[in-house]
Amino acid sequence: MIKVGLLGAGRIGNVHAKSIAANAQSQLVAISDFVPAAAETLAAAYGAKARSTADIIADPSIDAVLIATSTDTHSNLIEAATAAGKAVLCEKPVDLDLERALACQAATAPSGRPVMIGFNRRFDPNFAALKKSFDAGEIGKGELLSITSFDPAPPPVSYIRVSGGLFRDMAIHDFDMACWIFGAAPVAVTAVGSSIVDPAIGEAGDVDTAVITLHFADGRIAVIKNSRRAVYGYDQRIELLGSDGLLQAGNVLESSITKTTVQGAIGAKPEYFFLERYMRSYEMEWRAFVQAVTTQSALPVSLQDGVNALAVAEAAALSARLGKTVQLKNGRPVLA
Amino acid sequence: MIKVGLLGAGRIGNVHAKSIAANAQSQLVAISDFVPAAAETLAAAYGAKARSTADIIADPSIDAVLIATSTDTHSNLIEAATAAGKAVLCEKPVDLDLERALACQAATAPSGRPVMIGFNRRFDPNFAALKKSFDAGEIGKGELLSITSFDPAPPPVSYIRVSGGLFRDMAIHDFDMACWIFGAAPVAVTAVGSSIVDPAIGEAGDVDTAVITLHFADGRIAVIKNSRRAVYGYDQRIELLGSDGLLQAGNVLESSITKTTVQGAIGAKPEYFFLERYMRSYEMEWRAFVQAVTTQSALPVSLQDGVNALAVAEAAALSARLGKTVQLKNGRPVLA
Amino acid sequence: MIKVGLLGAGRIGNVHAKSIAANAQSQLVAISDFVPAAAETLAAAYGAKARSTADIIADPSIDAVLIATSTDTHSNLIEAATAAGKAVLCEKPVDLDLERALACQAATAPSGRPVMIGFNRRFDPNFAALKKSFDAGEIGKGELLSITSFDPAPPPVSYIRVSGGLFRDMAIHDFDMACWIFGAAPVAVTAVGSSIVDPAIGEAGDVDTAVITLHFADGRIAVIKNSRRAVYGYDQRIELLGSDGLLQAGNVLESSITKTTVQGAIGAKPEYFFLERYMRSYEMEWRAFVQAVTTQSALPVSLQDGVNALAVAEAAALSARLGKTVQLKNGRPVLA
Amino acid sequence: MIKVGLLGAGRIGNVHAKSIAANAQSQLVAISDFVPAAAETLAAAYGAKARSTADIIADPSIDAVLIATSTDTHSNLIEAATAAGKAVLCEKPVDLDLERALACQAATAPSGRPVMIGFNRRFDPNFAALKKSFDAGEIGKGELLSITSFDPAPPPVSYIRVSGGLFRDMAIHDFDMACWIFGAAPVAVTAVGSSIVDPAIGEAGDVDTAVITLHFADGRIAVIKNSRRAVYGYDQRIELLGSDGLLQAGNVLESSITKTTVQGAIGAKPEYFFLERYMRSYEMEWRAFVQAVTTQSALPVSLQDGVNALAVAEAAALSARLGKTVQLKNGRPVLA
Repeated sequence: MIKVGLLGAGRIGNVHAKSIAANAQSQLVAISDFVPAAAETLAAAYGAKARSTADIIADPSIDAVLIATSTDTHSNLIEAATAAGKAVLCEKPVDLDLERALACQAATAPSGRPVMIGFNRRFDPNFAALKKSFDAGEIGKGELLSITSFDPAPPPVSYIRVSGGLFRDMAIHDFDMACWIFGAAPVAVTAVGSSIVDPAIGEAGDVDTAVITLHFADGRIAVIKNSRRAVYGYDQRIELLGSDGLLQAGNVLESSITKTTVQGAIGAKPEYFFLERYMRSYEMEWRAFVQAVTTQSALPVSLQDGVNALAVAEAAALSARLGKTVQLKNGRPVLA
Repeated sequence: MIKVGLLGAGRIGNVHAKSIAANAQSQLVAISDFVPAAAETLAAAYGAKARSTADIIADPSIDAVLIATSTDTHSNLIEAATAAGKAVLCEKPVDLDLERALACQAATAPSGRPVMIGFNRRFDPNFAALKKSFDAGEIGKGELLSITSFDPAPPPVSYIRVSGGLFRDMAIHDFDMACWIFGAAPVAVTAVGSSIVDPAIGEAGDVDTAVITLHFADGRIAVIKNSRRAVYGYDQRIELLGSDGLLQAGNVLESSITKTTVQGAIGAKPEYFFLERYMRSYEMEWRAFVQAVTTQSALPVSLQDGVNALAVAEAAALSARLGKTVQLKNGRPVLA
Repeated sequence: MIKVGLLGAGRIGNVHAKSIAANAQSQLVAISDFVPAAAETLAAAYGAKARSTADIIADPSIDAVLIATSTDTHSNLIEAATAAGKAVLCEKPVDLDLERALACQAATAPSGRPVMIGFNRRFDPNFAALKKSFDAGEIGKGELLSITSFDPAPPPVSYIRVSGGLFRDMAIHDFDMACWIFGAAPVAVTAVGSSIVDPAIGEAGDVDTAVITLHFADGRIAVIKNSRRAVYGYDQRIELLGSDGLLQAGNVLESSITKTTVQGAIGAKPEYFFLERYMRSYEMEWRAFVQAVTTQSALPVSLQDGVNALAVAEAAALSARLGKTVQLKNGRPVLA
Repeated sequence: MIKVGLLGAGRIGNVHAKSIAANAQSQLVAISDFVPAAAETLAAAYGAKARSTADIIADPSIDAVLIATSTDTHSNLIEAATAAGKAVLCEKPVDLDLERALACQAATAPSGRPVMIGFNRRFDPNFAALKKSFDAGEIGKGELLSITSFDPAPPPVSYIRVSGGLFRDMAIHDFDMACWIFGAAPVAVTAVGSSIVDPAIGEAGDVDTAVITLHFADGRIAVIKNSRRAVYGYDQRIELLGSDGLLQAGNVLESSITKTTVQGAIGAKPEYFFLERYMRSYEMEWRAFVQAVTTQSALPVSLQDGVNALAVAEAAALSARLGKTVQLKNGRPVLA
């Protein structure tokens, strides 16, 4: 049983609180938030205490912290918590800036404390089943990976402005999925993007529709399609062509109902957004973290994975801006 | 918040314990079982007390009991618990004998206590969505209902012998679904059955494969297909032809993965059995019971529904034996 | 190359004319029809001659006739054509009256001429693939066969009146499919029907919705669901549960398009009716007939098959009327 | 009725011969081939004459020619045939060299004769249905188009060497589909490719796996995924995300059969290759050509369309080689 402090009581903090409480091997003892009332409400619901972030990190009886605060605080909190001897699960991304993330990694390494980054999609049962089948050699050698990742609706432009942009904010999950499935980081990134969903997103300096191609050292290719808007719901699909076949992970639908009328055969839509679709993956993510921490075994997602995905995001943003393929060398984007 | 006693700590008792504990409006306070150690183990896991059935029924601080004991005890326990002023949720069937169930209904009525029968499939989200679409008139008038209900593997013959037979034990769920969807009880039942899966089932006097046709007063027809064995898992589908279209509730699959190789496009199997497929329905069933009891509103499934399904089962068994359509008049099977 | 006379130039005659003309081993030389102008028009389109039925049968240069006239003429024409030494492909059913069909069979047998009955669905590529997989043992022993067969819209009541009723006119195809798939004729038939689609069909003495259960000697069961109306098109599906799995033949859809909007994922409807769905099966049927005739090998569908299906139809009609299971002994319906 | 000469009696010439013969408004009168015996065999099968290409072009009684010869002869034959006053349907691509194709276009224009390029996929019923739905506004404004186009197996390396490479030989169909669906030519092309399927393809200077992104003036993006090998068959899918939904054209499967066993639910594979999948599209293509020629109306695919697709192919090849986005200006690739 590990004692856990939760930093951040917002929407995603609420999701994590539930997972921590539901796990028999972890106990949610303290919650902090920028808005104290939010921490208090959530703490009351789970029998935990609302405390300050500093207090939680300083408390030697707390074994682990889950960082679910705003992105700009992630690196600092990872450093502080590991320095205080805690195991850390931090929401993605590590930082919006690659150099800061690399510095965080360097600063954290000496502590030897486990730091896991919250790429929860790896724990989605369908994607995990795809990965397992692939790793078992069921479709031979991987050749061409394709990820479709569309949000149901764009966030407010105010959020877009501070988000780091589509590549760092949204596609970063898909970059991690590609690296995870192929078991490697890409050597080159080519991206194109446009703001066709909403011109205001373009005016804010971001794109809302993008295609990113990752090139791996041995010739494997991954292509990621992103859109900020799919009116029918959260479209989250993966397919992988291999030398012996194709693996596809389809959407999770709202029901198994089909209604056939003169209008056609009408099936259910995908689950609406990540709170519906990935609820189970958050629970499994937490379970995996606790399992690794309590048994002192390797983390299923490392800080290095978080840095890798961020490097790809930076390369993609650069590629889209310059209209050139960007190489990745020693973990940093490099123009040829 | 209602205080609940659980009678029966077997496989299905375990399922219900979880639902009771997970519901914020109910508290699992006591558990009994024929095997005291089973009650003790389960009670320990949920912070409840292991007690005798008689003690639980006699305890005025307990508001409701959930009866998950063997079928031959259901009627007696319903009578005792309602006489003691408790609300009751009892697993199906009410009894293996229709006359005993009718007597139980008569004995219970004066108490005015709510008695709900555990036809959990009504609460399966897919079937509930089908019912909702149908009730909203989306496929017009219902005409021909078809239920496929196959178990993954037959139970031991020792169980078959005391089960009441396929019609009372297994098809009874489907009889309830048909009555529920059509909002009526049938006026005639025609059944055929055979033991082709396992001759030992035939030697035990039961069938393992059956087709039952229900005829409703206004000409609507329902057909139920049962088998004790579908090696690929629990096959639970419903389709309903109406004047304006067709509604289908498909199986719930183990994953959304498809693997396409030279052998074909290989998709996932249905969830293996009721503990997987209907876990959510048990949770929703309990929620609905608690909601009805705490707000003193109408139960979503009544004792009458339990008696109706049993009358259909009895008619089906008779029809299969005699090779004749059996009428249902005043709630009892009648030969024409 | 065989020379062929086509008797009947109606809707189905037109379908057959195309198949005969398209087959390199058969030549359409003559066409007759009750309405001479219909024969002339069709003959002109295919370079054949319009002649009387009697002339065609009497012409020794014609090797085979395809009988596509009204049902009441089938038996007489089969007898006349075989007596004249011709090979015969006759549309289903052999006759509306079982005794007349049996007499036709007896009268025809001495000629030794091949008589094939037009159960075209056996030649549908999907159903043929299902049969092939089953015969190869891919799902083990067959146990429960289920056939869904819904027309898109009921025929005029004037047709209903002379059709012989749903069991002889519509379900007869399904009876043949069941006998063909299981490789046997049933020993008992149980049917229920009602007229819920259109009361006028009931007033004409027929049903429009029916469920028929066939019981085979070794315990296998087949269930057939029929409706005269499925507004979304021709619903033609088969599924077969075996000891090692399930085989399903789905509908053939109008396209492979899915449109997903806020309303759901809208796929295509089934092909509208038999002219669309079974066009290929008519072509394959004719090919199989020509192949058998030119190589003097066994017909894929015999006159006996036509008689068998008719006996099942008669038993089904009787069962629905009496509310009793009807036995089939020595090829005739018998009340127990 | 138009009289048609077929130039080329190879595999695709055989496909076209069938379509020409099956169309009531066209008559196949003459066939030529580099291998005279091939022309003779095919001519005999359809009652046409085997003649030299020069003779066919010089014959004033022939109204149209279908060019199905090797790619290096296309431009010359288009010029010769139009100069001789014939209508032309020419297989794709116009030429392997963009400048030669542009010259052919310039040379041909004065004749005013119709020249259609054989982008048969536009006539595939499923893709045509997708285009029709999109043009009707059913998913709003188009934003992100995705084309999956995998061959079942790579051609011999000897063919690869003279093919012009994957972008000109294989992807050119997909470039035309993208331009056709969006009703525009792209303004920029970004491609990545690798030879991971077979190193011998890489040694021959080509790629076997590629992802090409097309950028359109208004921000719309199309992404094309190509592989020379999908062991399960010909994978030909299109999906289009719009402001109001998603359109998907799925594969055409070998059957509608599903077999569910302990191994999963095994459905059919896609049709194996273009002769199976696109047979119907060739027939519809010819019908559209004849219709346009006989009614003197606009061709559904023009020589300009052929030149456009070739310009995209050239840009893609350049982009993949240089690792840069390539602009298209005035119909020619331009480095920024």
